[in-house]
Amino acid sequence: MAQKKLGTVHIAILGLGTVGGGVYKLIERQKENFEKKIGCQIAVKKILVRNIHKIRDGVDASLLTDNFDEIIRDDEIDVVVELMGGIHPAKEYVLKALAAGKQVVTANKDLIAAHGEEIFGAAAEKGLDFKFEAAVAGGIPVIAPLMKSLAGNDIEEIIGIVNGTTNFILTKMTAEGMEFADALAEATRLGYAEADPTADVEGYDAGRKCAILSTLAFHSWVTDKDVITEGITKITAADIHFAKEMGYVIKLLAIAREVEGEIISSVYPALIPQEHPLASVNDSFNAVFIRGDAVGDTMFYGRGAGELPTASAVMGDIMEVAVDMLMDACGRTGEVCYRKLPFKPQGEIANRFFLRMHVEDKPGVMAAIANVFGINNVSMKQLLQKSLGADEAELMIVTEKVKEKNFRNALRLLTEMEIIKGVSNVIRVHGLK
Amino acid sequence: MAQKKLGTVHIAILGLGTVGGGVYKLIERQKENFEKKIGCQIAVKKILVRNIHKIRDGVDASLLTDNFDEIIRDDEIDVVVELMGGIHPAKEYVLKALAAGKQVVTANKDLIAAHGEEIFGAAAEKGLDFKFEAAVAGGIPVIAPLMKSLAGNDIEEIIGIVNGTTNFILTKMTAEGMEFADALAEATRLGYAEADPTADVEGYDAGRKCAILSTLAFHSWVTDKDVITEGITKITAADIHFAKEMGYVIKLLAIAREVEGEIISSVYPALIPQEHPLASVNDSFNAVFIRGDAVGDTMFYGRGAGELPTASAVMGDIMEVAVDMLMDACGRTGEVCYRKLPFKPQGEIANRFFLRMHVEDKPGVMAAIANVFGINNVSMKQLLQKSLGADEAELMIVTEKVKEKNFRNALRLLTEMEIIKGVSNVIRVHGLK
Repeated sequence: MAQKKLGTVHIAILGLGTVGGGVYKLIERQKENFEKKIGCQIAVKKILVRNIHKIRDGVDASLLTDNFDEIIRDDEIDVVVELMGGIHPAKEYVLKALAAGKQVVTANKDLIAAHGEEIFGAAAEKGLDFKFEAAVAGGIPVIAPLMKSLAGNDIEEIIGIVNGTTNFILTKMTAEGMEFADALAEATRLGYAEADPTADVEGYDAGRKCAILSTLAFHSWVTDKDVITEGITKITAADIHFAKEMGYVIKLLAIAREVEGEIISSVYPALIPQEHPLASVNDSFNAVFIRGDAVGDTMFYGRGAGELPTASAVMGDIMEVAVDMLMDACGRTGEVCYRKLPFKPQGEIANRFFLRMHVEDKPGVMAAIANVFGINNVSMKQLLQKSLGADEAELMIVTEKVKEKNFRNALRLLTEMEIIKGVSNVIRVHGLK
Repeated sequence: MAQKKLGTVHIAILGLGTVGGGVYKLIERQKENFEKKIGCQIAVKKILVRNIHKIRDGVDASLLTDNFDEIIRDDEIDVVVELMGGIHPAKEYVLKALAAGKQVVTANKDLIAAHGEEIFGAAAEKGLDFKFEAAVAGGIPVIAPLMKSLAGNDIEEIIGIVNGTTNFILTKMTAEGMEFADALAEATRLGYAEADPTADVEGYDAGRKCAILSTLAFHSWVTDKDVITEGITKITAADIHFAKEMGYVIKLLAIAREVEGEIISSVYPALIPQEHPLASVNDSFNAVFIRGDAVGDTMFYGRGAGELPTASAVMGDIMEVAVDMLMDACGRTGEVCYRKLPFKPQGEIANRFFLRMHVEDKPGVMAAIANVFGINNVSMKQLLQKSLGADEAELMIVTEKVKEKNFRNALRLLTEMEIIKGVSNVIRVHGLK
């Protein structure tokens, strides 16, 4: 079937912030190439903004509107590109666009993580495209590879560094021995962290991306509320220092795994071995590590945010939608979620743990700890003790894999012992063979 | 437009070697999921083999045929999956399949690198799918991301480690100080190198992949003959040792760049900084680093060969073709090559060079070398000298970027000087900021 002819695909952009502005720029930049690359032209017909009177350099002011209904009522507009972020009114706008028969492209992770099922359903019902490559890991192609190129795999595990702000902070802490608060201040100064950094440093942003990745990987709905989330605010320079001495770096990881028919979907800081491909993903870069039963280990690396990197992902989606329209083949996604898997209870999840404690430095201490570990099925893999003088020491242990409930039991017993002066931190360990 | 109903997509597999066997296995493994993932079933109807009497475990013998015409004449066969490798008769079979209106999926890099234009043209003319994700970097999704997800970018540069055999050999040499011949013997023993390793160690295999990547990146036909290829046979343990002392590792790179409207497409061993994302791609792993004008730096990492990793890529393509058929949307590629760019002459290409020389260790030597460099516009970036005793020394220089012809001029003058006892090696340097 030869390609049908179509003149121009008209789009409306909702929001002209960093990403919206980037998409507008990229469309201008690629204008000459669309016809050859995809067989039709792409043109911006309208841009929804709050204030149509604000001067915006390089943007045709006649495109601006502050009235969403104008976009919905414009039959020439084929594609709505939602780049406002947040849940409301983005959700209402996306659903209205779909109801009006318009294809939708979005970068909105919050929206998909919270209301993916409803929105995917609305798009499928209408046979419309709903694309969101930019919602996870910004410019890095990871959604399309996961949904299409790797479709012949059962996905076993995804481990992602999907938040640039926290990766920048941890990189600073690692490279310069900074404490969290100082690294955060530096990130804020350089514009990597927002005025209110909560969503980043508490892991909520990464949690939303983890929900989306989990959903697509395991074909079972996972929302942001299902993701167990722990941030990096309790990570100290000392944790990073001692982890390094034991051969690890600390990264904020989004973890999606299917184990025995149950889903694990979590975000937390973790130790990974220095030679792991994710260990050298530094600064504000993102990377997503995907293990499939056929392909084995793969990794996708690049910029997870920023004007043009994110716009690159949105642009790829818009061009795909245009080709789908050209071929009259929109709504070509299969069933996104055809399974309904339970979540593995936290206590039943087996992980390795890094435990850092302040202990008395005297004979018998190790025997006492080993005893508590033994009765709780905790085995030690690595141990490092540093004398602090005055008969006290800092003790670092990396355990073998153990169910979290067993480890927590052991930990509770340890904290009750007089020889243990204090537990400095407990961090999970990933990526060991 | 709701999805049309289609029962089963029937495929024929040409060749039941490693990859063909892997695809057969994966189809069996995913049988339960196809309907849900893509809305139809996929079934193997015929398998072309040389010897239909050979016993093949787990393969339904009634599917085997040694007669390609049986496949062509079978109207129920929708997709021909060519996994024989080599140019003949693969080329004739692929063209006949397209002529008969069958979609084609292949993993055949040799074929595309040599005859891409003819085959893409035949597929486009018939409005058929022609997919080849497995042809470059095996299981790693890189063709689809490059052609689709990154379509909104002008691609500036691709640097790939796309040959697992040579990467295994160089990793061995680096980790264990082995010489090339010993590492090759080890690779052969472990099955990483073929009995005749020429295509791998001389860089021809990587060259074919480089041709394909260059074509897709710059939208201008590049064949394997256009790629300037240099293998790793002249790399010594000493090169690797001294490169390491200066902060680099040596990798066989496929380089595709567009500079001032001209294409550079080459394969050669090169030094890259130890902190470059490609530097930690070890053993038989592959990785492709892509820089786009919007997305910036991205990297795709994974297994470049092997039964199931390669089958994973082929499977992704087959499933895409099935969805295209379901939507009556085959042949949806735009114009692959809508430009016709010249190649930059080798002498005009600016690179950094690593130069290792055996020199006399006496006053005035450096001045003489610096003088030759100066009159040829070669600047030094890094220098390392190691005394060899007896008034001789090993001198390692990394230059700043310089046109190859200028560097070669300088090199010719240096070799004529008495103070230079011999040039041990010249290796290009990549990935420095």
